Amino acid sequence: MPKSSRLVIFPGSFDPLTLGHLDIVTRAAGFFDQVEIAIGINESKKSLLEPEERKQVIEEVTKRLKNVTVATFSGLVAEYAVSRKAHALVRGLRQAGDFDYEARMAHANLSLAEGLETIFIAASPEYSSISSTIVRDIYRWGGDVSAFVPAQVNDVLNRRRTGTR
Amino acid sequence: MPKSSRLVIFPGSFDPLTLGHLDIVTRAAGFFDQVEIAIGINESKKSLLEPEERKQVIEEVTKRLKNVTVATFSGLVAEYAVSRKAHALVRGLRQAGDFDYEARMAHANLSLAEGLETIFIAASPEYSSISSTIVRDIYRWGGDVSAFVPAQVNDVLNRRRTGTR
Amino acid sequence: MPKSSRLVIFPGSFDPLTLGHLDIVTRAAGFFDQVEIAIGINESKKSLLEPEERKQVIEEVTKRLKNVTVATFSGLVAEYAVSRKAHALVRGLRQAGDFDYEARMAHANLSLAEGLETIFIAASPEYSSISSTIVRDIYRWGGDVSAFVPAQVNDVLNRRRTGTR
Amino acid sequence: MPKSSRLVIFPGSFDPLTLGHLDIVTRAAGFFDQVEIAIGINESKKSLLEPEERKQVIEEVTKRLKNVTVATFSGLVAEYAVSRKAHALVRGLRQAGDFDYEARMAHANLSLAEGLETIFIAASPEYSSISSTIVRDIYRWGGDVSAFVPAQVNDVLNRRRTGTR
Amino acid sequence: MPKSSRLVIFPGSFDPLTLGHLDIVTRAAGFFDQVEIAIGINESKKSLLEPEERKQVIEEVTKRLKNVTVATFSGLVAEYAVSRKAHALVRGLRQAGDFDYEARMAHANLSLAEGLETIFIAASPEYSSISSTIVRDIYRWGGDVSAFVPAQVNDVLNRRRTGTR
Amino acid sequence: MPKSSRLVIFPGSFDPLTLGHLDIVTRAAGFFDQVEIAIGINESKKSLLEPEERKQVIEEVTKRLKNVTVATFSGLVAEYAVSRKAHALVRGLRQAGDFDYEARMAHANLSLAEGLETIFIAASPEYSSISSTIVRDIYRWGGDVSAFVPAQVNDVLNRRRTGTR
Repeated sequence: MPKSSRLVIFPGSFDPLTLGHLDIVTRAAGFFDQVEIAIGINESKKSLLEPEERKQVIEEVTKRLKNVTVATFSGLVAEYAVSRKAHALVRGLRQAGDFDYEARMAHANLSLAEGLETIFIAASPEYSSISSTIVRDIYRWGGDVSAFVPAQVNDVLNRRRTGTR
Repeated sequence: MPKSSRLVIFPGSFDPLTLGHLDIVTRAAGFFDQVEIAIGINESKKSLLEPEERKQVIEEVTKRLKNVTVATFSGLVAEYAVSRKAHALVRGLRQAGDFDYEARMAHANLSLAEGLETIFIAASPEYSSISSTIVRDIYRWGGDVSAFVPAQVNDVLNRRRTGTR
Repeated sequence: MPKSSRLVIFPGSFDPLTLGHLDIVTRAAGFFDQVEIAIGINESKKSLLEPEERKQVIEEVTKRLKNVTVATFSGLVAEYAVSRKAHALVRGLRQAGDFDYEARMAHANLSLAEGLETIFIAASPEYSSISSTIVRDIYRWGGDVSAFVPAQVNDVLNRRRTGTR
Repeated sequence: MPKSSRLVIFPGSFDPLTLGHLDIVTRAAGFFDQVEIAIGINESKKSLLEPEERKQVIEEVTKRLKNVTVATFSGLVAEYAVSRKAHALVRGLRQAGDFDYEARMAHANLSLAEGLETIFIAASPEYSSISSTIVRDIYRWGGDVSAFVPAQVNDVLNRRRTGTR
Repeated sequence: MPKSSRLVIFPGSFDPLTLGHLDIVTRAAGFFDQVEIAIGINESKKSLLEPEERKQVIEEVTKRLKNVTVATFSGLVAEYAVSRKAHALVRGLRQAGDFDYEARMAHANLSLAEGLETIFIAASPEYSSISSTIVRDIYRWGGDVSAFVPAQVNDVLNRRRTGTR
Repeated sequence: MPKSSRLVIFPGSFDPLTLGHLDIVTRAAGFFDQVEIAIGINESKKSLLEPEERKQVIEEVTKRLKNVTVATFSGLVAEYAVSRKAHALVRGLRQAGDFDYEARMAHANLSLAEGLETIFIAASPEYSSISSTIVRDIYRWGGDVSAFVPAQVNDVLNRRRTGTR
């Protein structure tokens, strides 16, 4: 079996999934055999969308990508990736300032799980200035986030805002 | 055929190949089906080793990596990669400051050859401060570069220095 | 009417206003017709000075700058700027690391309010290492912040410390 | 007369003008009364296009922008700006790594010409990875630069390549 | 008495001490006459190890370094350093992104205590991606941190985890 | 003998010495027993001032600093430092972008000469945007560099310009 008919994992909070995340997952899906979007659950952190809501909307957004699946996990990314027999992690890099943190995490994951590489993809320029943090801030102040997230994510956020979920 | 039983190309000048390059190519070879080290020939730039010398020594250094080959090319990386039907480019990132230039190149290559992604791997920490430029500088001033390059590269440089090649 | 006989807005928390902020506002006032310092109110964040206190002391500090006014606002900067018919936002950049965040905010504001540009001014070198965060930390541990803030801000902080406000 | 019915200068080599430059000049023209693109002539540097060629094509590209003019100059930007009674310089910032150099130049220009501020605009994300250097490299290797430069610049480069200028 | 038969202080939280910290303190101890590791106590921040536990384990880890002592302090580093008649502060730099914050602190400390320089040492490459934050995260999720901290620190953390302290 | 009654070396081109260099050497001289400014001679690089001219003017500028000496050297810094039995190298850091290169050099020097540490000092903010490159550029275009260099350096440059040296 060729090496890469295996799984790569794209871990993150995806709270919410942005057009930047979708860019990375779409490009990774064109490149790797199987991509799993792994939503990290961190109960001590206040979130905008519940993990289950995030999972549902991401499944909806990515359903046309046949080799992409969505899952939730808690605990260490490295341990989860090992339990899934994943081949590698995938992460996007938007700006130079992302690299210091991402390199630290990549090296930590290699230490924790031998051979677990992290593969980086540079964000497409047009998405390089989008972050979930900015989306949450704009949303919380009542602003329109439709330029930053897929339509389905925007719908979920709007339904929630107007109390009709 | 699974997507990734294909070729990825690691382009560069490799003048000379350092332990940092070897780290990236070794890890890429563990991950992808086929890795080609593609030595760019730039006649207008004064080089330390001739392209053919670089090719020979890199072949020697990487001979235990069964899925790694070495080639030379001139012209645009994107065009060369297309001519080789390569699946992607691979590049190492050592420090945050590398990212600005590398992201510009990655986006240019995607524009020039649709679908030609660049996959980045973060240098292993112990090799993150090695560069060919520093090796060339030390060598030209008569210093010992054995801590920075594979033994075979060091031998080639030493033979050249003592005039016994 | 020439384009620029209009308002630019310098948004921030200004908790407290530092010599770095004063440098930016003074230079912006020499350049634009009308500059408004817009103090963002964020009730969920613990602040050192109340918004009203900040407004008063900033008015005092800037009263010799005839084309500078001070206001408070809550909600999104972009929406506030539109409501004020502002021509642009003004922000200072101190160090390279500021740029990633500031560029993200600038692009978000352009998305939220068409044509709302952000104009950046590089901090004067002597003020490039001052931040409100450092001022707050020093103040909270009982240190002397007079080298970092205008005299009037220092007075307000000292009166508060000694309980005589 | 309001302060800003005056001239701002956008200095650079523009060898050649890219879509990134055009983005900055278009946005600056929407913001300032008069914008002059000032092409620096540096005879000791080998250029792709002659200054006069650059001037002509930039005039063509920007002719729909009524408040934009194009000029060439040699010597120090600060002295040229003073001779033109310019109000400020305008520069684009693409990535964090640009800032260190640009801040040094801005401070040097303020030292050389009192009150000569530099106003920075963050590149639109979609143009943030374009540089004249990359365009020159691709062009010199025979590649297609039409994704990076305005159509008129592309035409000039192509005519030159095919010898029909 | 020569200038440097004096004390330099290495301040930090050391929650916990990592191999990166140990690298810096070992190299500083080879260079300066007397090095004090000064553990800052910040009661408002939730910590992994109590200050007294940190002090004990650091003393154990560094006991072979005859010119290294360990202390705890609260309040401003600059004031503490003056009270100790320290000659300078010592800090490690791991990545470019560390510099902005560290330079701001260094300048603040020089303002607060005349002549109190901060001396920086670049982390050894192999330790440049270790941080206490990553260690705490891995530990809290039940992971193995033995690759990142000295053996004695690892023992303390493990005893605590298994309830046998 | 205490460890530090020894020599530290501040290597560089100093073509010419700027106020930024003088800041670093003055602060280093307040801290270390003996500081040597070591001017690297690189015959293949076109210089503004001859090494001997640089040496003379730097001696003049620093003559009030009793523990500072000036020398020239060629070849590798590490070898020169060993030949001088130097205790460490000293370098200034102005901006985050300096760090990547400086860390690479520091690690290379440690590899080449065991125990040869590099000590970094953050530039004083007011000098953080001065570089010899900018000084040379301004000088070559006929500009006034007196804001960036010590008076004696300015005199040497002016005498040379007017042909009266």
